[in-house]
Amino acid sequence: MGKGRLEAFSDGVIAIIITIMVLEMKVPHATDLAALAELVPVFLSYVLSFIYVGIYWNNHHHLLHVSHRVDGRVLWANLHLLFWLSLFPFATGWMGENHFAALPTAAYGVVLLAASIAFFILQRAIIRVNGGAESELAGALGKDFAGKISPVLYAAAIPLAFYNQWISDALYVLVAAIWFIPDRRIEKVISA
Amino acid sequence: MGKGRLEAFSDGVIAIIITIMVLEMKVPHATDLAALAELVPVFLSYVLSFIYVGIYWNNHHHLLHVSHRVDGRVLWANLHLLFWLSLFPFATGWMGENHFAALPTAAYGVVLLAASIAFFILQRAIIRVNGGAESELAGALGKDFAGKISPVLYAAAIPLAFYNQWISDALYVLVAAIWFIPDRRIEKVISA
Amino acid sequence: MGKGRLEAFSDGVIAIIITIMVLEMKVPHATDLAALAELVPVFLSYVLSFIYVGIYWNNHHHLLHVSHRVDGRVLWANLHLLFWLSLFPFATGWMGENHFAALPTAAYGVVLLAASIAFFILQRAIIRVNGGAESELAGALGKDFAGKISPVLYAAAIPLAFYNQWISDALYVLVAAIWFIPDRRIEKVISA
Amino acid sequence: MGKGRLEAFSDGVIAIIITIMVLEMKVPHATDLAALAELVPVFLSYVLSFIYVGIYWNNHHHLLHVSHRVDGRVLWANLHLLFWLSLFPFATGWMGENHFAALPTAAYGVVLLAASIAFFILQRAIIRVNGGAESELAGALGKDFAGKISPVLYAAAIPLAFYNQWISDALYVLVAAIWFIPDRRIEKVISA
Repeated sequence: MGKGRLEAFSDGVIAIIITIMVLEMKVPHATDLAALAELVPVFLSYVLSFIYVGIYWNNHHHLLHVSHRVDGRVLWANLHLLFWLSLFPFATGWMGENHFAALPTAAYGVVLLAASIAFFILQRAIIRVNGGAESELAGALGKDFAGKISPVLYAAAIPLAFYNQWISDALYVLVAAIWFIPDRRIEKVISA
Repeated sequence: MGKGRLEAFSDGVIAIIITIMVLEMKVPHATDLAALAELVPVFLSYVLSFIYVGIYWNNHHHLLHVSHRVDGRVLWANLHLLFWLSLFPFATGWMGENHFAALPTAAYGVVLLAASIAFFILQRAIIRVNGGAESELAGALGKDFAGKISPVLYAAAIPLAFYNQWISDALYVLVAAIWFIPDRRIEKVISA
Repeated sequence: MGKGRLEAFSDGVIAIIITIMVLEMKVPHATDLAALAELVPVFLSYVLSFIYVGIYWNNHHHLLHVSHRVDGRVLWANLHLLFWLSLFPFATGWMGENHFAALPTAAYGVVLLAASIAFFILQRAIIRVNGGAESELAGALGKDFAGKISPVLYAAAIPLAFYNQWISDALYVLVAAIWFIPDRRIEKVISA
Repeated sequence: MGKGRLEAFSDGVIAIIITIMVLEMKVPHATDLAALAELVPVFLSYVLSFIYVGIYWNNHHHLLHVSHRVDGRVLWANLHLLFWLSLFPFATGWMGENHFAALPTAAYGVVLLAASIAFFILQRAIIRVNGGAESELAGALGKDFAGKISPVLYAAAIPLAFYNQWISDALYVLVAAIWFIPDRRIEKVISA
């Protein structure tokens, strides 16, 4: 079974997700600065989610790139990941429109946590069909610090949102930064 | 005529269908748990439809994978299938927003039934252009238990919705389960 | 310059157009048959437009398939066609929601006419870069009866909508039928 | 790292952006000419943005076509460009629905300016990974008059919108025309 259509379908879904998120930023009827200022929280939540979906696309790209085979388990693990990513527009809009209120901020963390677990499951499914735990792929993914720390930080951020949601939002920004940086470090190792 | 663009176009349409379904889950204005609880039926119908569209994408992927040629009949049979799949967001939203009321539940079954018939027609068109009833492809698809039982169960679910819609909803979940399981069994046979 | 990305981009745009048209069919709040009956004109206009966009995708597929080269002129002629196709959801929704009233029916004809002219321009641009009027491609497209009669019928349908819009709607259905049938005839010639 | 998925993903995102912009042109409830006349500014802003997104797709196509390699920096520079392009539907709708009022016109210029800077950054990132400033690619892009004059004109248009927005709108049309013409000139050089 070829991985080409899996990549193409995933690209399509992720491209749509990243683009329809912007539809939550409703065009205001007024034309003054106050109307734009109203949109700042929606805009900030859009920027954060755009970066997250970008990170997922990047990681998905890398994961499939090093994979040689896919099977039905991988197809479904991939659909499972896409399901949680498809909830980003909803979670982003709910958090942004309510100015980062406690429950929407926690719900955003639940979606992030579920997506990170889904990505982990997809990794396992891909390693399994590409030679198992002893394979080169498993080795390359083994030092995956960002993949291990992210769910822990999301799981911490969810209850913390009810204490002070800004701590949770800071954690979401922190995780995005963690992913953003080692992504380029790993690449240097690969190209070396 | 190449099958590449047929696959790419179908991937695009299915990717959009599976993603815009989530737009029916409108971002609530309130930020309490009651607002989330309101969305539970919409969410459940979204999950069910996501799985169904995922099954169709999977089956479409497999069907085209074993096909060597396509013709104009296949192009139109494929568009016919995509037409019925494009009604999923409508049927899903109508059923979810009305908490699985009788008529929307029956309408959902009509869309499922029509899509399953459209998939059957697409199979026939692909078998026809790839060697006919005696071909290897026809043999592989001949034991298609799920493809034969699904329309029967959908056809039963449609009138049953007016007696008790939960029976119909249970049948929709049952058919999804039937598809989900043999899909992996067939694959084991293929890889063996 | 490769035609691959031109096809992929066009597939993406056409896939989105054909799918977002269904969003004009708004999920009703009521759950009775009257709510569904309300949607019948919207549904019929959606079916007609789905077939038209399907025909355009089919013809686009065939046109690019026989083309070997593309240039900047082709890229822009293609974008010009996609522009008019992108107005299908608007024209379809306006006509359907107003139960095929005169002006929306005429406007639908304007979009159909403009798209057919845009397709003709794209054909010329592709013939030009693939060997000109003496080429095999120009010969194959020369007998293009449907391509020649369609703009005439659209141009007739636009003013007729203000006399009796059902004549215009019948003409739109007729043109779709004309396209649908010879499409398969031509293919038989090709495969023979 | 292959550029195929980068192109496919970008095609997907740009295809969605160019298509969902049309959703800002809401289907009117009335069926008279006054209802259509109301939409003229929205339509004009849609046409302008369609041409701009078409230009970006064209330029993106050419840039990636001459590129042999991509790295993580290119992936992120590309996502950065797609981010600003994703704000086109919002900026277009805001400007069109408010009949080219001063602040929305200025905001449109800000999005254009940011996208042009993002495209410049993407060019630098691609040159960097494809042989640096001495490479053939850098030479080909060096005479990029349109790329240099556009940000200057956008930067002028933004404050001018508060003096007279029609000057700014004229500048946006002018820049689109500048891009449209040399694009075909460069191509003649390439094919010669």
